[in-house]
Formats: sequence, C-alpha cells, structure tokens
Amino acid sequence: MLMNTFCRSNLSNSTRFLRFFSSSSKLPAIPRRPHLTVLRFSSLTMSDQPVQQPILLGEDGQPLSKSAIKKLEKEREKLKKKQEREAKEQEEKLKREANEVDYATQNYGKPALNQSQEKNNFKWSQIDSIEPSRVGERVRIQARVHNTRSQSAKLCFLILRHQTSTMQALLSVAPDSVSKQMVKFAVGLPLESIITVEGVLQKPIEDIKTCSVSKVEIKLDKVFLIAEAPSQLPFSLEDASRPVDATPKEGEQFVTVGPDTRLDNRVLDLRTPVNQAIFRAQSKVCNLFRDYLDSQDFIEIHTPKIQGAATESGASVFKLQYFERSAFLAQSPQLAKQMAIAADFGRVYEIAPVFRAENSNTYRHMTEFIGLDLEMAINEHYHEVVDLLDSLFLHIFRGLQKNLRREIEVIKTQHPTEDFVFLDQTLRLTHREAIQILKDNGHEIEFGDDMGTEQERELGKLVKAKYNTDYYIVDKFPLAIRPFYTMPDPVDSTLSNSYDFFMRGEEIVSGAQRIHDPDLLITRMKAAGVDPKDMKSYVDAFKLACPPHGGGGIGLERVVMLFFGLGNIRKASLFPRDPRRLEP
Amino acid sequence: MLMNTFCRSNLSNSTRFLRFFSSSSKLPAIPRRPHLTVLRFSSLTMSDQPVQQPILLGEDGQPLSKSAIKKLEKEREKLKKKQEREAKEQEEKLKREANEVDYATQNYGKPALNQSQEKNNFKWSQIDSIEPSRVGERVRIQARVHNTRSQSAKLCFLILRHQTSTMQALLSVAPDSVSKQMVKFAVGLPLESIITVEGVLQKPIEDIKTCSVSKVEIKLDKVFLIAEAPSQLPFSLEDASRPVDATPKEGEQFVTVGPDTRLDNRVLDLRTPVNQAIFRAQSKVCNLFRDYLDSQDFIEIHTPKIQGAATESGASVFKLQYFERSAFLAQSPQLAKQMAIAADFGRVYEIAPVFRAENSNTYRHMTEFIGLDLEMAINEHYHEVVDLLDSLFLHIFRGLQKNLRREIEVIKTQHPTEDFVFLDQTLRLTHREAIQILKDNGHEIEFGDDMGTEQERELGKLVKAKYNTDYYIVDKFPLAIRPFYTMPDPVDSTLSNSYDFFMRGEEIVSGAQRIHDPDLLITRMKAAGVDPKDMKSYVDAFKLACPPHGGGGIGLERVVMLFFGLGNIRKASLFPRDPRRLEP
Repeated sequence: MLMNTFCRSNLSNSTRFLRFFSSSSKLPAIPRRPHLTVLRFSSLTMSDQPVQQPILLGEDGQPLSKSAIKKLEKEREKLKKKQEREAKEQEEKLKREANEVDYATQNYGKPALNQSQEKNNFKWSQIDSIEPSRVGERVRIQARVHNTRSQSAKLCFLILRHQTSTMQALLSVAPDSVSKQMVKFAVGLPLESIITVEGVLQKPIEDIKTCSVSKVEIKLDKVFLIAEAPSQLPFSLEDASRPVDATPKEGEQFVTVGPDTRLDNRVLDLRTPVNQAIFRAQSKVCNLFRDYLDSQDFIEIHTPKIQGAATESGASVFKLQYFERSAFLAQSPQLAKQMAIAADFGRVYEIAPVFRAENSNTYRHMTEFIGLDLEMAINEHYHEVVDLLDSLFLHIFRGLQKNLRREIEVIKTQHPTEDFVFLDQTLRLTHREAIQILKDNGHEIEFGDDMGTEQERELGKLVKAKYNTDYYIVDKFPLAIRPFYTMPDPVDSTLSNSYDFFMRGEEIVSGAQRIHDPDLLITRMKAAGVDPKDMKSYVDAFKLACPPHGGGGIGLERVVMLFFGLGNIRKASLFPRDPRRLEP
Repeated sequence: MLMNTFCRSNLSNSTRFLRFFSSSSKLPAIPRRPHLTVLRFSSLTMSDQPVQQPILLGEDGQPLSKSAIKKLEKEREKLKKKQEREAKEQEEKLKREANEVDYATQNYGKPALNQSQEKNNFKWSQIDSIEPSRVGERVRIQARVHNTRSQSAKLCFLILRHQTSTMQALLSVAPDSVSKQMVKFAVGLPLESIITVEGVLQKPIEDIKTCSVSKVEIKLDKVFLIAEAPSQLPFSLEDASRPVDATPKEGEQFVTVGPDTRLDNRVLDLRTPVNQAIFRAQSKVCNLFRDYLDSQDFIEIHTPKIQGAATESGASVFKLQYFERSAFLAQSPQLAKQMAIAADFGRVYEIAPVFRAENSNTYRHMTEFIGLDLEMAINEHYHEVVDLLDSLFLHIFRGLQKNLRREIEVIKTQHPTEDFVFLDQTLRLTHREAIQILKDNGHEIEFGDDMGTEQERELGKLVKAKYNTDYYIVDKFPLAIRPFYTMPDPVDSTLSNSYDFFMRGEEIVSGAQRIHDPDLLITRMKAAGVDPKDMKSYVDAFKLACPPHGGGGIGLERVVMLFFGLGNIRKASLFPRDPRRLEP
C-alpha cells in the first residue's frame, strides 16, 4: 500500500491506472510503447471483482503478434524487478524516518469516524467561492483529493476538487506546523478520498492553468483524512473525463472507459466535472420549466403511478403484484392529467417518472424516465397550448444559456457539440410541409406517413441547413398515427390538432388538443380497438363535462441529451434503467 | 330531460339530488320530513351504474319502522303524481312557446364541438380577477354552471364557478338580444356544465353574500353551452362542500357524501372549492420546499423507482415483472440519494412517488405517496441537517400562511380546524425527554421504547398544552428502533444521531446522520439481518469514499393533511391509492 501510493504519485495518471491492474491482477504494468495506441477494457470493475484481461492493440488497431507480446512480457518482468527494488529501498527509508520526531501529529492524520462528536460551527469555504480577492485569508475546506504530486520530501502539491471546481493546495515543511511525515501522509492520500484542510490563501507563482481556480492556491497547515478511497479505483477520473472524440497522439496511450464500465461504477463516473455539470443542467431544466409555468397560473399535481388497468396506448406496461390482484405502472400521466382538467384545475403540470416496458436497446430509450407533462384548458384554439409550449421552451433554452455558462463550457470539454441554436420566432411547419421537405430531398415518404427516427433526423439536418435552427415545431399530424384521445381537425378528417416539437432532429414533445366530448371519445376509442369499459373513470370524467383542453409531454433526459449533444440518453440519467440494466 | 331541468331549477339542491334517484332508479323522491335527518348512501355512482337503495334513518339514527316506510311510500306516490301533472303542463307550455319568434338564436345555444375551428384571440377573463373597479366593462368568461335560479320567464340568475371563485350572472329578456327562449335555455343548463358567456359587469342591488365575488355581477347577453353535464350527478357540490362537523338543524335534512362515494367520483369531488384550495396548497408546499432548498445550493435529482433488489428496510415492497426477471418498486429514494452524495452532488432533493406494499387501511397510510426527500453532506455535525430542515419547515409554514390566506379560509369552511401554531424558535426535545413527558403524564412507556401512533398523538397534546406549538422536533432516537444506515451516537451506544419532526402530534419527517463508513455500515447491516451482498452498489458507493452526511424524508400528503387538519390523508391526494383502491 505504501509502495503503491509512493509510486503512484510519481507517475502520470494513465500509468497509475495501469498500476491498478499490475497490483490487483498480478499482471505487470505495461510501459509506454509508441506502437501501443489504445487499450480497451471490455469491462472494468470494482477492485474486489474479477478483472478481465485487457486486449492489447497495435497502432493498426489489430491484436499484437506473439513476438510482440513476448517482448512486452520481458519488459514487464524488468519493470517488476525495478518495482521490487524500489519497494525495498522505500521500506528502509521508512525505517530511518520512523526514528525522526514528528512535531506535527496534531495537524494531520485520520481522525475518528465523524459521528458528530463536535459542533464547532466553524466557517467552511467551498472551492468555487475562492476568489483572488481573498488572498491572505485563512480557510477551512472539505474536498476530494483529485491529484497529489510530490516535489521533494519537504514539499507536495494536492489538487482539491469539489463538483466542477478544482484548486491547488501546497504543503511544505515548516517548523512546528508541517513535518516531513505530514508531507508524506499528504502525498500518500488515495485519490478520491475526502479530506478536510486548513491553510492560508496565497497567490501562486504562476496561474494554475489545470485548475478551475487558477489565481489562488492554499498553503496548508492542516490535513485530515475523513473518508478514505481505495488505493485502486475502477478507473481514473482523468480517463473518464477525456473528450468523446479523443484519439491518442503519436506515442501516447490511454484508456477509454466504456459505457458499461461507467454505469457499473456510476457513483465514481458521476464525480467527473462533466457529469456534475450535466446534472446541474438537468436540475436547471426542471427549475426553468416550473418557473415559467408557475408564472402562467399552472399548479403542480401528482398523479398515481400505480394503475388498476393497462391502458392508453400500445406501449407496453410493467405489470405488478398488488396485494391479491394485478396492477400496472403508468406509462404517462396522460389520463390523470386530463382528469385533473375535468376536475377544474385549469392548468396543471407534473414532473414524475414514466415507465415503458419496451425492449428497446437504443441510445434514446430507457424503461424509466422523467416526464415533464402539462395540460391546460383552452378558450378557443389549441394553438393556445402550442404558443405556451413554445414560450416555455424558449424560456428553458435562454435560461440555460444565460445561467449555465460555466456548466456548458465544462460539458463541452468532453462533448464538443456545436452550440444549440434557435430562432427568436420559432419555425412552425405543418406535417405536410415537413414531408414535402423530405420528398424534395429525395426521401421516399408519402403525405400521411409517420416519419421514422432516421427521417426525422434528416428533416432536422435539412431544416438546420435552410433555417439555421436546431429547434422547430411540426403541426397537424395525420389523425391515423396519433393516439385515440387526439382531437380530429375540424375540416380535414385525415388530420388532427396535434404537434411535435423537435430538437436537433429528434422529437422532444408530443402533444395535441384532446377530445373533451365523451361521445366522440368513445367512438375514437372503439376505432382504435380500446374498450371504453376498460377506462371507465377516464370516460366518466368527460361525461361530467370537461372544458376543451390540450397539452404535451416532454422527456427531460432527451432535452438534456439533445441540448448538450451527449449522444446517449443514459448520460442524462443519474442511474439509468434499460431492459438490461437495473443497477446501480 | 326537459321536465328534469325545469323541476330542478325550482328545487333546492338537496331535493334536486334526491331527484337523481327518483328518475334513475324509479324510486320516487322523498319529500322533506322533519323526522328524517340524514340520508347516508353507502355507495353513490355514475348515472349509468346500478344504484344501491339508500338506508333511511330516523332522527334517532335507527332504520325506519315498516309503518313509517309505508307512510313514506304513500307520500312518494303523491309526489310522483304531482310531478307527472307538472310535466304535462310544462309540455303544453312549451308547445305554446314554440310558436313565439326567437330573435336571439345567435346569442345562445350549443355550438359545434370545439375542434379549434376559430382563433379569434379574444380577451378572456377569469372570475377571480373580476374587481368592482371593472364595472361597466364587457367581459367574456368560460366557467361552470354552479347554480341556476329562475325568477320569472323573463329573468334568471346563474352562479358561475371557476375553481375557488363564484360570481352571479343574470339574464333578463331584452329586445333584440335576450329572448324568453334564451332565458329558459339558461335556466335549464345542467349544473356543472361548462359555458362561455358574455356580458357587462354591473354593481348588484345588494352584495351577493353567497359568492366569492360579491360586489359585481354580469348582465349577460350571450350564453353558449360548451360541455354539457348530465342532468343527474352522483352528488351535488353543495352536499360535498358541507362542513365535516355539520349536523342538520331541526326540520332540516341533508345528504352526507361518504368518503368512498367521493373517491369513486373523484373528478366531481375535486371540483369543490375546498378541494381546489387543498391542491393549490399542496402545490404551494412543493414550491416552498424547492424555493428554500434552491436558495441553499441544493440540486434536484431524479432517482429510479424500479430497483433490482428488494432492500432497505422491513417495509414491504411491490414486485414487478421486468422482462425476463423480477424487479421492485423503490420504497424511498434513500439508497439512491445517499449514492448521489457519494457521487459529490453535495446537497440534493427529490420530489417523487414512493411505494409501500403495506396492507394498512388507516386514515394516514397510502400505498403510493409523494416523498419530499433531501440529503446533504455535512462538515461537522448532523445538527447542520436538523437546522436546515427546521428552517425549511418554518419557510413552508410561513409561506402557506402568508400566500394562501384565501385558500386557508376556504378549507376552513369544511374543515374548521384550529390554526396551525408554531414557535419562532422551534422546540427540540430529546427522545428521552419526550418519553419523560409521557411518563410524567401517566403513560406506560420506557426509555428506549418506540412511541406508538397513539402515544405520539398524546405527546403532541401535552406539548401543545405546555408550549403552545403544533410543531416540534424529537432528537436522539434509540439506535435499536432506527434503520441500519443510521449513525450511532458517538458516546451512548444505545442512541443514534436521528430525529423525527412532528406536526399536531404526528411524524412528518424521519431523518438521521447516515453511516458513511463502509466497514461500520456492513457491521450494522449484518446486525440488522441485511446481507451486504444484496446491496452491493450501495455499499460500493461508500467504499469509494463518501463525505459525512444526513438527510430526511417528508410525506407531502401528511404535511398538507396535518397543516389543514383534514383528518384523512386521502383528502390530500389527488387520486389516492390504498390496498383497496386503484381507481380512478
């Protein structure tokens, strides 16, 4: 362990990562070799799990030849011996040092587990609040050990991290307060440990470009280990933070952390500044959604997720055991939010999980996701809803761009997607116009057809090229491809009063004016093969008289994925669920 | 139908309700009788469902004797004949009137179903925005028909209702604009129908005390029926709005709408101004919860409700079919929110459904309810969490009292509970002190015992009597009665760093400092009979180093129930779920 941490702090992060395999699987570390470009691990796991052999690839991407592997093994053997020699030297050095008097024992170490023994009401600072103007101030910080670097036995540097922020701390031997042993303790702190430190803010010799706080550092005189991370991690945060399109330069090698490895170790993965920024953005989307709707006289409702009957649409539902009978998980709050309109709530929204038992293993499907739903009574025309939804989205987009500049920059370090662009006056196409654009560009599609995912994406590209917007609305979908509760167009019986909203060529809202007349509703249910008796409470709500109304449902994770161009919806879900994943 | 509406509008609401049974079940209506005080219907249903016989109770609450029933039947027979005679007269009158010219046909009637034929962008007013200063203004309103009253063939009054607001409209025959036929149409509008009206605001002859808008009325010249309610409703809103402690006066009789009847027809029930106010208050609680936590650097998270393993505590969980395997519904976000702390989110909250498969049929249990959960890293002491939760609750209580004056008054018309009182400096008792109070007052309970619901309520009364507060905190619960993840007290191993918050003697928050050390966690899991292997992802989160932290979970519906003294948690849930109820 001591050897491990000693060696680690003198190696680069990538090499350090390899050392994990070196010590945990008895596979000696691989020295840097120019012809080795990428190491891909099909599965990286917690340290107490079996570790799979890495697949070694040459520059050409092909597995190494036998002779190359042999050569590699020789080098490993050499390194192993070197490490053993170093360990021995280290041990002897330790023995010598043990005899030196440590005058700083009260200033560092691992205190007893915090069980709230003390209540000092100290003032604590957060890294992101450290400004150059505070130079000279004494601060107390709780943070993670992001990195450690030993300069000599008398001086070391720590990079402290809290969420998206990092800053440098230095610890240098000083009479009475900082001993050599204390410096060694700090250097040996396992990365990702939680520590509390105290010290004085000072101006660094030069700006620390690798840290988010670049113009101030802390000169430490107290370092305590609050929660110790293991010496070996499933992957390093550096590897997990690399740009998605990164390719190793000539002579460079690095580990690509695969999506399953990330999700298997999601708690570690979520600590990357990029993920910290993504979920701050996700939180902000909900915030902006509510802000806007609250200002428009909506109230928040909570509708039951456990349903007595499997209903609404063809989407598969999860079945559960409910005491002596069966029940089902709501695939949307559609029925309940409409019933809330029939119950006079006027304008309602809900942010809640929705469940889809669809066995779709794609980049954009999950079995559980967060629906941002709204429904509102209208006075005259369903465009009252479209206008409101449009204003809502503009409020969200502008709010993100205004309030999350830093988060957007952080997310770009890994996902260098083009900025999301939108018009002041949102483009609105009819479904017919959208199909015409596709037809004009050689796509085989007819009016009345449903656009497939690929065609929608193509439309997105064509719209972007022509109108320079990543956001637009398609109105007046064919009646036949919408759910039974969709209000038919008053003139053209093949059309409906329904709309989808798109971001970067993908649907993010589906909505419509709903049928509020019980007779028409029953007719449409029967036409769709739905038995009105199976949805009695729903039909009854309209029999009791319901105002004309409309609404829509937004997929939260989709909005986040598409706004930031994350490429996979799981990246926008804290602990995603798909047909194959129920953990963590 | 015509007879129905004609008769209805000349009868009181209670009598009108009885007419529903009269016509739908062939049971003639019961005339007012002084010795009949209360009619209780064990089940009231939609008009197309079978209707159960009402149980007729005498003044003494006992079923009527045979001779009394016979007498009643005679009276019914008499009434039936009278009604038939009236119907005939009415029919003849109609024939006469049909020959009169109607010059107002364009100003009333039932227009075609609103399929968004027109987009006029008219200005629409809401009842609650109608101020005396607007007298003389022409307005256009969409509202429900709350009541109708015919003064003569030339004049009628409508009470319009929108959510918690009501106002009077009058329609009086005028050359060119309002015909006798139009007045009759308005009088005959089924209660609860949605109408749009136009007219001019005017000062009424005297204040309309029965309406929330009492100093203005509308003189109508346009009335259109947008959505027609049935002529017979499962119950009248008047009956559903009566105070819970109402008893009929001498000579009075009225219908008490039972809880199951309400919930079976929840859409209608929710329309009462009291229910409109309750759910506005519920929405406000969430709003205040988020406001406060947003101001304290929390972020909102969304954790999965579908779990791979049934875990956490003894509370039963719902099992569901998840493709080829089994899964479980989360009984709280406990594990996930702690993992979010291990993942560096620092301070998190979630508002989401939680599921409990407990077969408890009480006034305070539901199988699905909304949890307001929070979790936060601490620097020194778990009282950082207690202090924050306390400030949060004071923010919520003060926010409700400040912003919801009108709603509080409306809710009191049905639930005349004492105002909720709380201290500026919240009372904090230790669990030991709480038990001592009970012991001092003759309760058989020992230190270390868990308080039962009844004892908690007793404690609430004793605390209220002594300290005049409905809200207080009990700290330092015995370790043995708390979940395995609760941090033990640093000194007394029988105690823990945990707390409950109480409102009116009922627990509304349960929380604690959590164990962030993986070794101690595993020890405590084993002691509690939980296999750490079953919760691997959770335990792994702490192995990766997690800061000290604590939190709590609040039951939304409980807060609303207790703040307003509703007496049953179902009244604070839009569409409640309990072991026996999955609909609507």
